[in-house]
Amino acid sequence: MKKKAKEPGNLREDCVAEARAIVEEDGLEKLSLREVARRLGVSHGAPYRHFPSRDHLLAEVVARAFGEFAAHLDARHKTGTPQEDLAEMGRAYLSYALAHPLNYRLMFGTPLPDPEAHPGMMREARHAFALLRGGLCAVHAARRRDASDEALDLDALFVWSIMHGLSSVLGGSTIDQIGLPARTLTKLPEHSLMRIGRALGVDPQERDGTS
Amino acid sequence: MKKKAKEPGNLREDCVAEARAIVEEDGLEKLSLREVARRLGVSHGAPYRHFPSRDHLLAEVVARAFGEFAAHLDARHKTGTPQEDLAEMGRAYLSYALAHPLNYRLMFGTPLPDPEAHPGMMREARHAFALLRGGLCAVHAARRRDASDEALDLDALFVWSIMHGLSSVLGGSTIDQIGLPARTLTKLPEHSLMRIGRALGVDPQERDGTS
Repeated sequence: MKKKAKEPGNLREDCVAEARAIVEEDGLEKLSLREVARRLGVSHGAPYRHFPSRDHLLAEVVARAFGEFAAHLDARHKTGTPQEDLAEMGRAYLSYALAHPLNYRLMFGTPLPDPEAHPGMMREARHAFALLRGGLCAVHAARRRDASDEALDLDALFVWSIMHGLSSVLGGSTIDQIGLPARTLTKLPEHSLMRIGRALGVDPQERDGTS
Repeated sequence: MKKKAKEPGNLREDCVAEARAIVEEDGLEKLSLREVARRLGVSHGAPYRHFPSRDHLLAEVVARAFGEFAAHLDARHKTGTPQEDLAEMGRAYLSYALAHPLNYRLMFGTPLPDPEAHPGMMREARHAFALLRGGLCAVHAARRRDASDEALDLDALFVWSIMHGLSSVLGGSTIDQIGLPARTLTKLPEHSLMRIGRALGVDPQERDGTS
């Protein structure tokens, strides 16, 4: 069977696209340079011209996933008030995590290549984190409060942990073990965003009966 | 080679112990009734006398994991004030998750057998959740606030999500991608517990300079 020929100029991009398809469709463990070559119909050695190892290809795939994730966060509905904007970012985070579970798990649930060796991947991950940190900075600024760099980092990690935990709890199966009404689960994201606002001291209003 | 003989009366417990060892040492994917029989030195059919399927054995392993986890939460240092007690439970949660990553992942990170078909497993999972919910109930009661069942469930799910997220963030590798100082990460658990207290309205004191 004749293999399809590839323009040499596109091979790098083709490798990345094929690698992303493998990760999204079949999972990370199926990713190898050999499998990418096989699916592209090029020689086994061809991908090595652009990626010295599987880790280099994987780092590029992870970088793209972080880039796409950050773009999704950035495309949120922007209302203008820092508090609501932070909540919108939270909604965007959850919608991405639940709509793209494999990409999400790739970024946040698997051992990744050494960041020092793959600065492009690290840059994209930091960019996504910086969006959240920027949202928190705006919230503090709107309240005319000074927050140290460390305090902002800690709040960003705190909010990220909540978003990550909610994504796992809502997307996982452990919740079925507890037997709670589906109605309660439906309310969990907005309840959590309200509680986050209160944790950060930005939402003094009563929105439910529990104070 | 002569296989060691097992007392029939202990076979059920031996199967559970061996299955737990397999999960903790080699991971869930290595668990099968056949592998348990092989490692115990009994006939392939013997475990079936106690467990009709792999799911039945797995459900028992998961139930034990939840039981051990709940016992760990229950063995926390109890200080008497509901607020501090909730924080102690949070510390116990994190210490268990970080010390027993495979047991933790078994409970909260893998598809589990159908809870309806395995009520014992579900009972243990609900017991662990009830401990957290009870802690929150005590916090609300100490503030003379009434909380509906649904509000308590939502707060318990909110706090659980945070603990689960912190466990993943602190135990995972994504954090390395962001390049934050180790000092910041060390402070994250206590910072988060302070923020949780504020989210629930139980910690009005200033403990840092950010609000």
